[in-house]
Amino acid sequence: MATPATRTMLPVHEAGTCAVAASAEIVGAKWTALLVHDLSEGPRRFSQLEHSCHGISPRTLAERLRALEAEGIVERHSYPESPPRVEYELTAKGESLLPIIDAMRDFGHQWLPCHHHH
Amino acid sequence: MATPATRTMLPVHEAGTCAVAASAEIVGAKWTALLVHDLSEGPRRFSQLEHSCHGISPRTLAERLRALEAEGIVERHSYPESPPRVEYELTAKGESLLPIIDAMRDFGHQWLPCHHHH
Repeated sequence: MATPATRTMLPVHEAGTCAVAASAEIVGAKWTALLVHDLSEGPRRFSQLEHSCHGISPRTLAERLRALEAEGIVERHSYPESPPRVEYELTAKGESLLPIIDAMRDFGHQWLPCHHHH
Repeated sequence: MATPATRTMLPVHEAGTCAVAASAEIVGAKWTALLVHDLSEGPRRFSQLEHSCHGISPRTLAERLRALEAEGIVERHSYPESPPRVEYELTAKGESLLPIIDAMRDFGHQWLPCHHHH
């Protein structure tokens, strides 16, 4: 099967495919794109993330944040104040997702008019 | 809740969030990123897509292609040859997904060494 590479020199069925598939799995996980998008503006508290991901349950948000921490995308910082303050922040790896999120936003603006919010 | 927009002028919780969420749903659907990535090189037959998405069943591939057609991302062309030839191709909307796929590939190459294929 000859596949003339018109867009890229990378063989589409090998390293490129693998990288795309693995990234799609991360960024396609429910709530991940929204959380990374939200955290792109800076550190956020749990309650702020809960507010911007409207519809998410506290239990699901906690689970998603733990998964993103385990994947090295989000860091959790707790400050010994009274009451204790906990904030979530993107790691360098998390920041590297932002070009994907930006491209998603551009695509959405061009092709997906959002009727359900506005 | 004051949210200083350091990265963008767009209010992150409104149109941007909606566009990101809607795009993430499309591109996060199982196999979509791989199929779009594969079709980025040009029209493909069913058997070629089946081959490059190793692990996909013919039934799932047919279902995914119908869904992508319904979403206006893929076009199906059949040519009245003998035996009949059917090819799948990205639409303009489908081509607009390529910056997302490219960003996914870059992220994957940088952060996700692919041990399971190589």
